[in-house]
Amino acid sequence: MHDLLSIADHMAVAVFAVSGALMASRKQMDIFGFILLGTVTGVGGGSLRDVLLDAPVFWIAAPGYAVTCIVVSAATFFLAHLVQSRFRVILWFDAVGLALFAVLGAGKALSLDAAPIIAVVMGVMSATFGGIIRDVLGGEVPLLLRREIYVTAALMGALVYVVLVELGIDVVLAGGAGFVVGFLIRALALHRGWSLPAYKGRPGRSENELREMGILLEDEEE
Amino acid sequence: MHDLLSIADHMAVAVFAVSGALMASRKQMDIFGFILLGTVTGVGGGSLRDVLLDAPVFWIAAPGYAVTCIVVSAATFFLAHLVQSRFRVILWFDAVGLALFAVLGAGKALSLDAAPIIAVVMGVMSATFGGIIRDVLGGEVPLLLRREIYVTAALMGALVYVVLVELGIDVVLAGGAGFVVGFLIRALALHRGWSLPAYKGRPGRSENELREMGILLEDEEE
Amino acid sequence: MHDLLSIADHMAVAVFAVSGALMASRKQMDIFGFILLGTVTGVGGGSLRDVLLDAPVFWIAAPGYAVTCIVVSAATFFLAHLVQSRFRVILWFDAVGLALFAVLGAGKALSLDAAPIIAVVMGVMSATFGGIIRDVLGGEVPLLLRREIYVTAALMGALVYVVLVELGIDVVLAGGAGFVVGFLIRALALHRGWSLPAYKGRPGRSENELREMGILLEDEEE
Repeated sequence: MHDLLSIADHMAVAVFAVSGALMASRKQMDIFGFILLGTVTGVGGGSLRDVLLDAPVFWIAAPGYAVTCIVVSAATFFLAHLVQSRFRVILWFDAVGLALFAVLGAGKALSLDAAPIIAVVMGVMSATFGGIIRDVLGGEVPLLLRREIYVTAALMGALVYVVLVELGIDVVLAGGAGFVVGFLIRALALHRGWSLPAYKGRPGRSENELREMGILLEDEEE
Repeated sequence: MHDLLSIADHMAVAVFAVSGALMASRKQMDIFGFILLGTVTGVGGGSLRDVLLDAPVFWIAAPGYAVTCIVVSAATFFLAHLVQSRFRVILWFDAVGLALFAVLGAGKALSLDAAPIIAVVMGVMSATFGGIIRDVLGGEVPLLLRREIYVTAALMGALVYVVLVELGIDVVLAGGAGFVVGFLIRALALHRGWSLPAYKGRPGRSENELREMGILLEDEEE
Repeated sequence: MHDLLSIADHMAVAVFAVSGALMASRKQMDIFGFILLGTVTGVGGGSLRDVLLDAPVFWIAAPGYAVTCIVVSAATFFLAHLVQSRFRVILWFDAVGLALFAVLGAGKALSLDAAPIIAVVMGVMSATFGGIIRDVLGGEVPLLLRREIYVTAALMGALVYVVLVELGIDVVLAGGAGFVVGFLIRALALHRGWSLPAYKGRPGRSENELREMGILLEDEEE
């Protein structure tokens, strides 16, 4: 059981590290840039979770996680050229990490006696944060701003897990179910372009329009 | 007194959550995107404050804050179309949250025996951080980079509060005064386009100019 | 010895604060904008380090650091016009801070009994994080995405320090060596345009190309 958790944890970190390293390849960084971006993406979500929960940060006392990130990122540096579409691979690795961290984040919160709703929020935050760091550092539009289902998948994964655990189901079963639900929703969204009804109104006005309306100040000088 | 603090706290979180959810509407996200962006914006500043002060993060043990964020963000999803100019509303809700968090951040730091100057810094950081997250995730220019008075309002609110408390004034009075000062300064800045004298020199050179001057490396390939 | 550490610490904070304040001048912010951006850049890397290591955040209990940031940032507001090329000065102050924080970050991790590899990772993260905050808040491409050697310099500085300390060398000597190695590598990279072999493949596809390939969803509406 503890082994299973550790394996899931390492897998989540590794797949996010790959997605971070592939972002580094899109930006044509050098090998140590790959390692930094891979590591930060890999451990980011779990670090946020642990800091918010006031728990020791998981990778500080267990060097295996950092080693995993370093090895995986370095390997990506040498193998990324084999990949036809790196962005597509980022999307799929991100999807696996998203579903894993949603369950792992919610589970850690529950194990520290957080309320069920806090556990769900923690699952969603730790699932999405690694990818947010990766996309912000890489200067890309964060995945969660895109139109297809993303946050929803993390939410459903965390929710299924928390509900099943609260119902007394075995945590391994609940975790498996949460992962499968989260991943399937995201996978179908990627495959079929599924999206929830988005906000129906008009998109936000551009800076220039806001300036013309007097909502943003004019810049006198340039 | 404790009730008053709790009300102020929930209000600060709620108004920032609205501003985050409105940013989500500008980006035409789905309802769970609204909830995530609203929640992160709502609890962001206070979370940073608590993590830096090594205090338990305020919303982890009190699920009411997360519930507030979720309800308020979901309501915004259904009501945002009623708003003529969402950006203007973001600015005003942000202003209320800014002034509230400036006082609340400084107050929490003082209550944990931080030095007065640290309390002021903490007030400014927790007041501005929620909005920074919202704007960075939304891909907008952070409000604090805009020309009109913003950081100054948070600073003055926190400063008035800390000075009054140090002078022995009742914390409720001091808090009220700090909030009013901070909010009024920001409100007048928004209404009248007030700004402090900005840095007088030229703006920064663009990447291309830097490259021509040899300060940035040429990119050989493209 | 303790004094030396404190001096190095304050220097690292001060040089990063200057680089943050210069970024504020490039964005033509007002004086309190300078102070906020300078302070956040100055204390950012060390704050991340302390939060991840679960140590009290260094500047909370020692107001001298905040005072340093405020004074240095305010001075920059009045003196920045004397500088011919602010971006070049940012690069050099950033280089000093990078090398200092690489050693200081690794040293603090070791002093808290982290494994050597974790100490190196912590050195790199705390060395690069202040600059990342500065660049993200300023809306600039983070230095670590640029082509010349950056992450590598922090890594080598931290690595030299950790290896020497593990070999039993005096920490002051080891720290000096780590700083010199880290700074020299970065300085030569800046001066001569050194870079490591970057990822050889093609750069990432643009959003439009991804959309045409069907990897990104079409946006039906605009």
